Amino acid sequence: MKTLIVVSHPEIDNSGSQQYLKKSLPDNKNITWHHLESLYSKKAIDREKERQLLAAHDRIILQFPFYWYSAPAKLKQWLDEVLLTDDSLRGKELGLVLVIGSAAKDYQVGGQVDFDLSTLTSPYQAIAKKLQMNFLKLFPIFQFHYMDESERMQLLISYQQYLTLSDFDSLRAKEQWFLSNLAKTEDALLMQVKEQLLDNRSDLDELELYLKGK
Amino acid sequence: MKTLIVVSHPEIDNSGSQQYLKKSLPDNKNITWHHLESLYSKKAIDREKERQLLAAHDRIILQFPFYWYSAPAKLKQWLDEVLLTDDSLRGKELGLVLVIGSAAKDYQVGGQVDFDLSTLTSPYQAIAKKLQMNFLKLFPIFQFHYMDESERMQLLISYQQYLTLSDFDSLRAKEQWFLSNLAKTEDALLMQVKEQLLDNRSDLDELELYLKGK
Repeated sequence: MKTLIVVSHPEIDNSGSQQYLKKSLPDNKNITWHHLESLYSKKAIDREKERQLLAAHDRIILQFPFYWYSAPAKLKQWLDEVLLTDDSLRGKELGLVLVIGSAAKDYQVGGQVDFDLSTLTSPYQAIAKKLQMNFLKLFPIFQFHYMDESERMQLLISYQQYLTLSDFDSLRAKEQWFLSNLAKTEDALLMQVKEQLLDNRSDLDELELYLKGK
Repeated sequence: MKTLIVVSHPEIDNSGSQQYLKKSLPDNKNITWHHLESLYSKKAIDREKERQLLAAHDRIILQFPFYWYSAPAKLKQWLDEVLLTDDSLRGKELGLVLVIGSAAKDYQVGGQVDFDLSTLTSPYQAIAKKLQMNFLKLFPIFQFHYMDESERMQLLISYQQYLTLSDFDSLRAKEQWFLSNLAKTEDALLMQVKEQLLDNRSDLDELELYLKGK
């Protein structure tokens, strides 16, 4: 599976969260980081080239700071100019990585924003519907600047999983992601974690077999 | 009441609907037509001047073709650069005039778009909430190109009312708008309409008095 991350941020060098995400990218030829403002701040968007890039990937991630509850202007321009209402993106996946300055609790009815993220992101869901793409669960990052080191580490792991796992939200896929990342470890603690995961998995598999047999 | 129409359309000269709306504007000093791409296609947005314009008006209308279920890029840029999260717009009104190519029936659960306009425009409602503005009912224009002459005339009237009436959705305000626009008519048919409106109003007033007395 090939993943394209279409990043939009007008001042990305000054964004701690975007720099952290960029550094978090696994060393993986199947992931393309594509920052729009670096390419197209001064020149016109190369529509044909962008469409070829989309065609060459399976999972399309739009990653941006949630300015006024939607994408920055450059990403909107890209959507307006590049997307066609044909079936060229049919069956591909569309995901959103939203960097949000305020707290998760603000995004609900009665909260400060008064709308939840499922509602506010409906225009992107409608795009996916129109283009026959599969819309992924949202990947919101709330208040990055208040995160401590362990929260950031957790974010890094979830982010890598969101980019690379075909079924990123299943327990089995997450286990396998950990096992493959732990394959070569010689760290005693991590080796214990690995043993624990393998034990858990065989317990779960036994349970599953038992339930199927009933 | 002063009304600012912030229009965004990258090719407004080729847009039949936008040209029709522009020609429909009443000759009224209290209405400002403000097309962003004419001003800011090549030069930077003058943020301070735009904020002064907002300060000088009471009703702010964002008028645009509904590209991918939201505003064109230039309007998003304007929102991102001009709006401040302070109380400078508190108490003003925010309205949306949406020009939409497809049919009204597509905008519902189970319809082709699968979302209704109240949901898709939630980011603008959240902006109004954040800035303590009053969000007006939407003014969507579906399939302008299929409208016949009488439908366009009806559109013109509703549009003028949306721009100018403080309580544009009440029967009484609409009546008064008609009466003031018919004040100088000498057309026999229109004079009859005027009489009918006045008769209706006195019947309604009597009914209201009667119900209050009960």
